[in-house]
Amino acid sequence: MRNRFDLQLKQLNDDIIEMGNMIERAIEMGVYALIGHDTDKAKQTIDYDMDIDHMERDIEALCMKLLLQQQPVARDLRQISSALKMITDMERIGDQASDIAELSLQLGDVSDIDEISLIQKMANETMMMVVRGTEAYVTKDLDVAHNVIDNDDVVDDLFDQIKMALVKRIQDNHVKSFEAADLLMVAKYFERIGDHATNIAEWVIYSITGKHVDEADN
Amino acid sequence: MRNRFDLQLKQLNDDIIEMGNMIERAIEMGVYALIGHDTDKAKQTIDYDMDIDHMERDIEALCMKLLLQQQPVARDLRQISSALKMITDMERIGDQASDIAELSLQLGDVSDIDEISLIQKMANETMMMVVRGTEAYVTKDLDVAHNVIDNDDVVDDLFDQIKMALVKRIQDNHVKSFEAADLLMVAKYFERIGDHATNIAEWVIYSITGKHVDEADN
Repeated sequence: MRNRFDLQLKQLNDDIIEMGNMIERAIEMGVYALIGHDTDKAKQTIDYDMDIDHMERDIEALCMKLLLQQQPVARDLRQISSALKMITDMERIGDQASDIAELSLQLGDVSDIDEISLIQKMANETMMMVVRGTEAYVTKDLDVAHNVIDNDDVVDDLFDQIKMALVKRIQDNHVKSFEAADLLMVAKYFERIGDHATNIAEWVIYSITGKHVDEADN
Repeated sequence: MRNRFDLQLKQLNDDIIEMGNMIERAIEMGVYALIGHDTDKAKQTIDYDMDIDHMERDIEALCMKLLLQQQPVARDLRQISSALKMITDMERIGDQASDIAELSLQLGDVSDIDEISLIQKMANETMMMVVRGTEAYVTKDLDVAHNVIDNDDVVDDLFDQIKMALVKRIQDNHVKSFEAADLLMVAKYFERIGDHATNIAEWVIYSITGKHVDEADN
């Protein structure tokens, strides 16, 4: 059975990488829909969330099969149970990307608000976190996982920066006060995406060390 | 098999009602955590989201069993496939209630901002929409389902009202400008919950009429 088990674990790794790439794409589509004020792209992003949901279910089914048929122990068991946790956060990121696309349908044109460039940065940072987090899972690279977690500070700083700037913009009775308020809500969604990407990296660390991050830090 | 099928359909109805009550409770806990600035309640709300996720999986498994073993047609088939769609929106509402609880952990004390009473109203309206939506599913009551959909205008109006008031508060350089910005983001979460509750009611209408709302309106 061992060879079959290894093949199935390889399949699991490939699927996790693919789901990571799907999430990256969803974030990219969502921010594109927002910045480009692009209705079609927004609808594509919302539809794409269903593909991500299906991917989650497929990976979940594979994990269940591995757990029931192979009854893995120790590190193999952690690898599979971590995958089950990771895909929940990945699916939530897909939801948030879809929510950002939904927002872009309701928002005024925010594309000429300066802070949009910081939103793009938040998007890029979170995309990188997701992709590197899933890579760290497959390569079992603790350092990369820790870098992903550290990177959440960059995302949080960007959020604080955007919040400051947008509140100031509203306080100054900027002509686009309401659009600034809309953009603030979008920034919050990206900040949450960063939180979920951090969770992913924390599960990677658990799958490698068997310790949850708080314990591992002790 | 018919009797067994009826029993399983009854089980499905009971589960949908229970999941509706769980969602109602999650929203209630989330807004309580926010208004009471209550860290313990916030953590409870976040944990409770896992129970809701499990309930979704249980109902999904029951639906799959019904579809595969009983191969239902027409109205029975619609009832089960609608349930599969409804629980996705219900689970998303659980996520949003959990996100509101997460927010309440990061926010300043917003409990003394006047608009908090409107947030409470949004919470009450959306709780009512979820509960009545699931009841309409079980009682196959088209009017109640349509009332739920109409009620989303009340939620949207409350959001617009809160947004206006909070942006004005910030423009006036109110001492709590940043807390006002925080509250705006919370209001957005409740507005999204209203959207998901509307989706639930639209699936109820489909399960009864076999038509999607846009068609049904024609």
